[in-house]
Amino acid sequence: MKTIVLVSGGMDSAVLVHYLRKEGHIVKALGFDYGQRHAKELKFAARLMKSLLVPFEIVNLREVFGAIAGKNALTNLAVKVPDGHYAEESMKATVVPNRNMIMLSIAIGHAVALEFDAVAYGAHAGDHDIYPDCREPFAAAISDAARLCDWRVIEMMRPFVKMTKAEIAKLGAELHVPFEMTWSCYKGGSKHCGMCGICTERIEAFELAGLEDPTEYET
Amino acid sequence: MKTIVLVSGGMDSAVLVHYLRKEGHIVKALGFDYGQRHAKELKFAARLMKSLLVPFEIVNLREVFGAIAGKNALTNLAVKVPDGHYAEESMKATVVPNRNMIMLSIAIGHAVALEFDAVAYGAHAGDHDIYPDCREPFAAAISDAARLCDWRVIEMMRPFVKMTKAEIAKLGAELHVPFEMTWSCYKGGSKHCGMCGICTERIEAFELAGLEDPTEYET
Repeated sequence: MKTIVLVSGGMDSAVLVHYLRKEGHIVKALGFDYGQRHAKELKFAARLMKSLLVPFEIVNLREVFGAIAGKNALTNLAVKVPDGHYAEESMKATVVPNRNMIMLSIAIGHAVALEFDAVAYGAHAGDHDIYPDCREPFAAAISDAARLCDWRVIEMMRPFVKMTKAEIAKLGAELHVPFEMTWSCYKGGSKHCGMCGICTERIEAFELAGLEDPTEYET
Repeated sequence: MKTIVLVSGGMDSAVLVHYLRKEGHIVKALGFDYGQRHAKELKFAARLMKSLLVPFEIVNLREVFGAIAGKNALTNLAVKVPDGHYAEESMKATVVPNRNMIMLSIAIGHAVALEFDAVAYGAHAGDHDIYPDCREPFAAAISDAARLCDWRVIEMMRPFVKMTKAEIAKLGAELHVPFEMTWSCYKGGSKHCGMCGICTERIEAFELAGLEDPTEYET
């Protein structure tokens, strides 16, 4: 099976690539540069994919999202990235309008063009209630669209959708994922800040999984 | 109601903008530059929107589609645009993989960011059986995704979906659409070629509608 994998540079997609390869998939990785403040995640993704000999392509969406995402904390340096646990109000500041649908539709286009069979992404149980476009009915609509958009049927795969981030970390450890080669922090500083929503989740995931956290945090 | 309208420069979207304005919509038009050989359609779109005082923005997708659409007649000058009536085999040469989903998802992103209510596009009865992504089940999946992708619900509108191109032409004549300010031909020469699939449809639409065709054709 030939599968396009959405890769962010973070933990979940790193585990996903390892998992799919172990399951026998031929994998091509796609990353997206949408002007995110933490674009360094893409450098981490590139380095990790290179070490795995997985072909990796970065789709430049800076101009596309420049016109869409003006007020967003992930792309606008004037807006502060919220600290602490994800909560609906603070999370809204990190939503880039329709980012997931845009990235998935481009990945589906690549799958059709390359005569691949599937597109996989690292959605997990922790996402669901916060972002509307991480919820099940949205994912089902995209899966329908992927099956129907072309003569070629593309399958959407979310193998981690019922797993917590801690369970994904545990699976990653079993698959020998080099977590020190992944980047999560939304602030994109020289080290992980240890304070923002995604750092908070990363720290917790290693703790709950009973794993040593190889990440250097500022705090 | 505030509505993003996908505008190509052709007849259908020109009629759509006129129709929605008459229905009381506040309209913003979006065009897409995906490296199409007939990019001059966008100049026609810009001129028409300017004459209507409709804000018009062109989304640059050349790089995005450059990576996807290598073998396609609309974007690759080495591939001949097929002449004559649309037929499944020849049409496949003009399919840009997942183009519609990518364009619609970007339009939905604009609608969310601008706090608009809807995205409208000029799908019509003639499209359905040829392109998978013009068929009803695909459109339904996209409508679902648009309702579910954000806290804000975006409605997808396809008011012409049960109309033939001739009926759209007739409606356009009633709305005083200046058809001489529209461009259809896939070949993008100095005049409409009068031979390719879309020219063939354009000629027929005016004939069947009993309207004078203001277009200058090469043949």
